[in-house]
Amino acid sequence: MGLHRVVQPAGVLPQAAWRLDASREIAPNEVRIRVQRLNLDAASFRQLSEKHGGNGDAVRAEVLEIISARGKMQNPVTGSGGMLIGVVEEAGRRSPLGLKAGERVATLVSLTLTPLVITDGLARWDGRSEQVPCDGWAILFARSIAAALPEDEDPQLSLAVLDVCGAPALTARVVSRYVEDRQRAGDPTPVSVAVIGGAGKSGSLSLAAARRAGAARTVGVVPVAAERDALTAAGLASVVAVADARDPVGLSTAVTTALGTPADVTVVCVDVPGCEHGAVLATADGGTVIFFSMATSFSAAALGAEGLAADVTMLVGNGYVPGHAELALGLLRAEPGVRRLFAARIAAD
Amino acid sequence: MGLHRVVQPAGVLPQAAWRLDASREIAPNEVRIRVQRLNLDAASFRQLSEKHGGNGDAVRAEVLEIISARGKMQNPVTGSGGMLIGVVEEAGRRSPLGLKAGERVATLVSLTLTPLVITDGLARWDGRSEQVPCDGWAILFARSIAAALPEDEDPQLSLAVLDVCGAPALTARVVSRYVEDRQRAGDPTPVSVAVIGGAGKSGSLSLAAARRAGAARTVGVVPVAAERDALTAAGLASVVAVADARDPVGLSTAVTTALGTPADVTVVCVDVPGCEHGAVLATADGGTVIFFSMATSFSAAALGAEGLAADVTMLVGNGYVPGHAELALGLLRAEPGVRRLFAARIAAD
Repeated sequence: MGLHRVVQPAGVLPQAAWRLDASREIAPNEVRIRVQRLNLDAASFRQLSEKHGGNGDAVRAEVLEIISARGKMQNPVTGSGGMLIGVVEEAGRRSPLGLKAGERVATLVSLTLTPLVITDGLARWDGRSEQVPCDGWAILFARSIAAALPEDEDPQLSLAVLDVCGAPALTARVVSRYVEDRQRAGDPTPVSVAVIGGAGKSGSLSLAAARRAGAARTVGVVPVAAERDALTAAGLASVVAVADARDPVGLSTAVTTALGTPADVTVVCVDVPGCEHGAVLATADGGTVIFFSMATSFSAAALGAEGLAADVTMLVGNGYVPGHAELALGLLRAEPGVRRLFAARIAAD
Repeated sequence: MGLHRVVQPAGVLPQAAWRLDASREIAPNEVRIRVQRLNLDAASFRQLSEKHGGNGDAVRAEVLEIISARGKMQNPVTGSGGMLIGVVEEAGRRSPLGLKAGERVATLVSLTLTPLVITDGLARWDGRSEQVPCDGWAILFARSIAAALPEDEDPQLSLAVLDVCGAPALTARVVSRYVEDRQRAGDPTPVSVAVIGGAGKSGSLSLAAARRAGAARTVGVVPVAAERDALTAAGLASVVAVADARDPVGLSTAVTTALGTPADVTVVCVDVPGCEHGAVLATADGGTVIFFSMATSFSAAALGAEGLAADVTMLVGNGYVPGHAELALGLLRAEPGVRRLFAARIAAD
């Protein structure tokens, strides 16, 4: 778990630590990665970029400052990190991760708990994109997770998919459960799913995963017409609707109109605050809301559902579900619509 | 939903509003309550009390200031509220709540979304307890929930139970699901449950609810010896363990030692920050953590589970589950241990 790398405060886990020891030497159960690229969490990059009014040099300077002060890339305001790709430089003899020197990998644990040193001053990054080319090293612990990058895919595309691979995996699990429960009960009601932010990375994968898991009807909610057109062209949702996710009544009306009923499962994939109440209102009694946005407020969700007397199950989106990397990369291969949306997003970055 | 009572900002639901209109006149679907007592949320009262160094006059002044500025009792720091008891003064002719003038009720929706006016300056409250005797009025909406107070119980005792009645109801639902799934699969493994903060209000009710829902083995985790003795005497848990919930390794070791395995279901009922990682570590793969504490950090939970590669389902504790009031009051009647713990807590307040 990397407890020996925690410098301050003592006794907490690496993710909760203010500062980690990112020394180059590895313990027998650790792995050192030569880092080639960071992929900053969307909420983190947005906060930094807005704070500095889009000034890339200032964003770069603050990211360097955070990494050097904390020994990891964890945005102190959003609490979030991101992930990285690189090449295995040295694997300790007792590491259970099965990695070999020279393998190209992406880490599937957050940067918030990954000891990290940058050695090139981020000289090749303009501070204007979540994708950060860089040189340096990072340390993986025994319980860290890393996935080998497919050799036949653009690494940047694989990285973007792996970054959010927990979302389609958990969506598939929850939707499958509703499908199985209805089958067992002999209930012919089709399972309906709403994905808020359906044209984004985690959103488009979640729509594809929901359909494959047996959702009969899906709606992708997007904020603007351009995303509506892109998602419609991708063919991943039964219906595409435009609504502001921060407007509870507007959002729930859009979902209910599109599906003909509130959703059995609502998946929140937009990284803006204030979507909790709309998501709850858009969900049927007995339904489930899965919050994947790091901008989610725990108390707004808990008190919102209580205040609306809404009998909904609310899940904290866990980025780890067994098999998540394979499932997400499989969706990229099988769903041309997913590939198109990801490629367009990377090109726009 | 009370949208017409939202003054600022426009368009949000009452819980998210900065300020509500607490005018005395009711709409045809509203109910006005003559308020007799507020029960402040534990996290809110603790924050106020610590901020003012235990100075009751200063706490009282700030509570009055919050209610008059916001038109509701919502702590701006913790975001939480509490609940109230009072007597129905006037029920609008289109209110679906079934309340009649003169009935004594407790509101089961949070004070964070309940329009409230205090008319006695909180003159009878010393600012040193969560229980706030007062005079004033509050408004219930069509979707609000209120429970008639049992006539054969001390109202203060009923109120304390109803305040946390969502916790035992959701715990029972989740534990039942594990019991049913194992039975269906022919899996004889007993279901085990850990309740962090087991001697508290929501904790003791959750322990009792877990046992009745079929948990074969339960552990109540408490921070100090006095609570250990009280919970042991109450007889609500198979084992009582002492641990600091903010110490991830200490907490998970205590739970695993007590149960012989990590818990299938871990229920977090302590109102201090930093318990997310310990709760995740204490829970078995495939298990569920239910967070009832308003001090829970969404990102700490999400990133913590991911960082530990922990395949656990994490639930935002929803204060509303159908039948929750009846279930909790039933536990108070059926479990002498619950009654003793509640009575002792009220006496100590």
